[in-house]
Amino acid sequence: MVHPVLINGDWIASSGTSTFQAANPSTQELLPGEFPVSPWSEIDTVLAAAADTARELRGMPGEKFAAFLESYADEIEKRTDDLVAAAHAETGLPVSPRLKDGELPRTTNQLRQAAAAARTGSWAAPTIDTATGIRSVLGPIGPVVVFGPNNFPFAFNGIAGGDFAAAIAAGNPVIAKGHSCHPETTRLFAEAAVAAIAATGMPKGLVQLIYRTSHEDGYKLVSDARIGAAGYTGARHTGLKLKEAADGAGKPIYLELSSINPVFVLAGALAERADAIAEEFTGSCLMGTGQFCTNPGLVVVPGGAAGEAFISSVVEKFTAAPVGTLLSSGVQKSLTDGFATLAAAGATLLTGGQPGGGTGVSFQNTLLQVSGAEFLKDPAVFQTEAFGNGSLFVVAEDASQMAAIAESLEGNLTGCIYSDTQGADDADYAVIESGLRTKVGRLLNDKMPTGVAVSAAMNHGGPFPATGHPGFTAVGMPTSSARFGMLYCYDNVRPDRLPAILQDKNPGDVWRRVDGAWSTADIL
Amino acid sequence: MVHPVLINGDWIASSGTSTFQAANPSTQELLPGEFPVSPWSEIDTVLAAAADTARELRGMPGEKFAAFLESYADEIEKRTDDLVAAAHAETGLPVSPRLKDGELPRTTNQLRQAAAAARTGSWAAPTIDTATGIRSVLGPIGPVVVFGPNNFPFAFNGIAGGDFAAAIAAGNPVIAKGHSCHPETTRLFAEAAVAAIAATGMPKGLVQLIYRTSHEDGYKLVSDARIGAAGYTGARHTGLKLKEAADGAGKPIYLELSSINPVFVLAGALAERADAIAEEFTGSCLMGTGQFCTNPGLVVVPGGAAGEAFISSVVEKFTAAPVGTLLSSGVQKSLTDGFATLAAAGATLLTGGQPGGGTGVSFQNTLLQVSGAEFLKDPAVFQTEAFGNGSLFVVAEDASQMAAIAESLEGNLTGCIYSDTQGADDADYAVIESGLRTKVGRLLNDKMPTGVAVSAAMNHGGPFPATGHPGFTAVGMPTSSARFGMLYCYDNVRPDRLPAILQDKNPGDVWRRVDGAWSTADIL
Repeated sequence: MVHPVLINGDWIASSGTSTFQAANPSTQELLPGEFPVSPWSEIDTVLAAAADTARELRGMPGEKFAAFLESYADEIEKRTDDLVAAAHAETGLPVSPRLKDGELPRTTNQLRQAAAAARTGSWAAPTIDTATGIRSVLGPIGPVVVFGPNNFPFAFNGIAGGDFAAAIAAGNPVIAKGHSCHPETTRLFAEAAVAAIAATGMPKGLVQLIYRTSHEDGYKLVSDARIGAAGYTGARHTGLKLKEAADGAGKPIYLELSSINPVFVLAGALAERADAIAEEFTGSCLMGTGQFCTNPGLVVVPGGAAGEAFISSVVEKFTAAPVGTLLSSGVQKSLTDGFATLAAAGATLLTGGQPGGGTGVSFQNTLLQVSGAEFLKDPAVFQTEAFGNGSLFVVAEDASQMAAIAESLEGNLTGCIYSDTQGADDADYAVIESGLRTKVGRLLNDKMPTGVAVSAAMNHGGPFPATGHPGFTAVGMPTSSARFGMLYCYDNVRPDRLPAILQDKNPGDVWRRVDGAWSTADIL
Repeated sequence: MVHPVLINGDWIASSGTSTFQAANPSTQELLPGEFPVSPWSEIDTVLAAAADTARELRGMPGEKFAAFLESYADEIEKRTDDLVAAAHAETGLPVSPRLKDGELPRTTNQLRQAAAAARTGSWAAPTIDTATGIRSVLGPIGPVVVFGPNNFPFAFNGIAGGDFAAAIAAGNPVIAKGHSCHPETTRLFAEAAVAAIAATGMPKGLVQLIYRTSHEDGYKLVSDARIGAAGYTGARHTGLKLKEAADGAGKPIYLELSSINPVFVLAGALAERADAIAEEFTGSCLMGTGQFCTNPGLVVVPGGAAGEAFISSVVEKFTAAPVGTLLSSGVQKSLTDGFATLAAAGATLLTGGQPGGGTGVSFQNTLLQVSGAEFLKDPAVFQTEAFGNGSLFVVAEDASQMAAIAESLEGNLTGCIYSDTQGADDADYAVIESGLRTKVGRLLNDKMPTGVAVSAAMNHGGPFPATGHPGFTAVGMPTSSARFGMLYCYDNVRPDRLPAILQDKNPGDVWRRVDGAWSTADIL
């Protein structure tokens, strides 16, 4: 039996003629569930329902969305064991602590933070100018299509993750496009969503799910007139094709594409605590078999004995560490290709370099090395992403070469600088930071980039090609919801016709910018 | 003699081989100044200087940008007579009150509001999470290219207008691309900018000016790696080509394209005050010879005697009103084409319809009419923009047809609803508002759209194709500066390395979001 798709609240047999199955990356065997590839006619029905739902949602108070998001978090928790088992089978990620104790609680926590943002309207930046009678606030942008990635089957899932939560909190219906590698996980989320919709009396089309489309239909989907915006996290090539389609139709699309997350280790840091940094880097780079968006894929170290000793120590740790299972054969292939490109460009292999070494789909923990001078001859090729358990060392001559390397980088999600805690590197830090700052969304000191806190101050974003727009974050509440809002301005609109959040009486404890000052007070 | 271009603080003879002259639309004669078309090699030099300047500006306190913007406003005021004379000659817009008493003070006021935004950092939304040690703030996105339109030679000029002020307040250098129809006005602004740069000790490359490029070089300019973002206000066709180029390179581009600014007049409003509304509409639609981005180009009225009487009254006023001068023969041509398209689609001409009737380049005050049913058969063609002194009446059968018309609209900057002040139309209002709200950036009640206050609550923006992204406004401080910021996040960054605006001690009276609450206090 082929699993049905979720259209406007009903599980409906797909009209598509082709199907697919996910594979278990640990056993390399196909998993039993068969899932449909939806044809355009089906996607068109989904779009029509989303447009109707968006109309139905207009003016609905944030409290309703909050109740749904909280109920959904509860329904997910009820299904913890099934979700964890499905995601483990489909992605090879460890059950514990990763899936059960890390990613699932993060996901429900994120949904509850989104509920708070919806309830208080804190995402919507209400702005009131009493002198001119003009008031404005962010409101729903329209139906949002979310394409989730494979590396976080819960926390970034198109039907449960960050983009989903942000879009719902902003008052929009979501069309989730499941990732082809973990359809059963996604299906279980959809069941929880249906239960939460019923429990909270929300419109049936609030959350819809299709599992797969042709590439062409994906482009049509993100550029359809009925869509408000799209979110995509995944491979660069596909993301850029979707961006081209959405851009052509004037539809915002928020992308999270590739990022190699450079780490600069300054001489003073090595002199002070080389072993600790080697340990920390190894943990960060091999965590989740290196399949984090913020995995440190480029490490710039000073030349000379200290740098060499640091590299040797990391090589030793990588060689000794167990090799994890990769998410899919596709990840294995692109990792193989990525390392091959780096090697062909002149990087020296220090350890690893071959497929295998772990359970199922895997690739040896791998390190390569290139000189700063070589790197600067062709910065583009040495920034080739090798997404997985490996990294490239760049051995720089001095801080000014490190700064030049920083200046040569593409946009990244993160950049780290480790320096002497007593300030011995401060002059070098200033030079390197100046170059690095504009290339990364999040700058870290003395800390690896792989933890991404769900915080209002987080920026999980950065300049192109890390994302499609450097002004937005994909993680963090209430900030990530701004991506799915349009600015609704009211000019001379009669007081009783204003949305509650813009009326003189503050409808709760909403922070509003009134005549230039932020306040939770009523307007007198 | 061909006027030089402004590159990195110096007036340099252009290396281009072709030149152009502006025309006086009132006399239809060429104006004396000869201006260069800059070749790519020259644009490349400008880009290199902009990139160097952006590096030099990094970390510079907002106070410096504020001082420059204020000095620039002063320098502009010193040149008022020359600017007004030049703009009058180049655009045909009246000297007074329009240019001298309206647009020029608006422009310097806007620069001074931008200065305040830069000084206080109020545009940058600093956000601090003390629990995680994560802090973030908007900072400069990189060099900004601004293409200004012809209809506001001061307030939207690429070297002095809204986008310019917003980009500088955000800490970016600006490359201004002057509008080909008013180069002398733009040149005079550049002289004022050079004086202000000198007076405030800012880097010489803060403001650069080129007058014209080939189309291809324009596309290269907005997609160049050294650019942070672009702003464009003007014709849809050109804007979409620039958008395609910028999008392909992952560079944000903020567009303000076409908008027909629908006005819905409900039955109760006509019963109550038809004459006043006819008067108000006529004033708004003919102001500036109809060449406002927010000019009301579509008026939906109820059928029957009251609607017919209202239309007749407006026709009378349009026929009697003097015909203004248009900005250029290009505007005259596109206006002619726009009306021709509407007529060919089936709209009936009520008055006007022919070129001429005023001084110089002009077109008769024109009104057309179509039924709601006809409109709904082909909403796209009846939304053809006719930019200038004319409008299309749509005679609707009832409120539900009005709502259907609202739902059929493309994105617009504004939408107005006039209704009975005692509430007789309130049920109809609710239905029409629901459809119209998502199609317009600014919703007005009982007021024409042509005034655009420079207010923090203003949205001069809207869904595509009115603009390229519905979340941003092009007018209003500090809000419009967000378009030219990227989100800089600091994670575990040592306290003394944070920008002043994110340090525990509040550097002034900056509003910051600290642990979810907005405050101007220090962090203890």
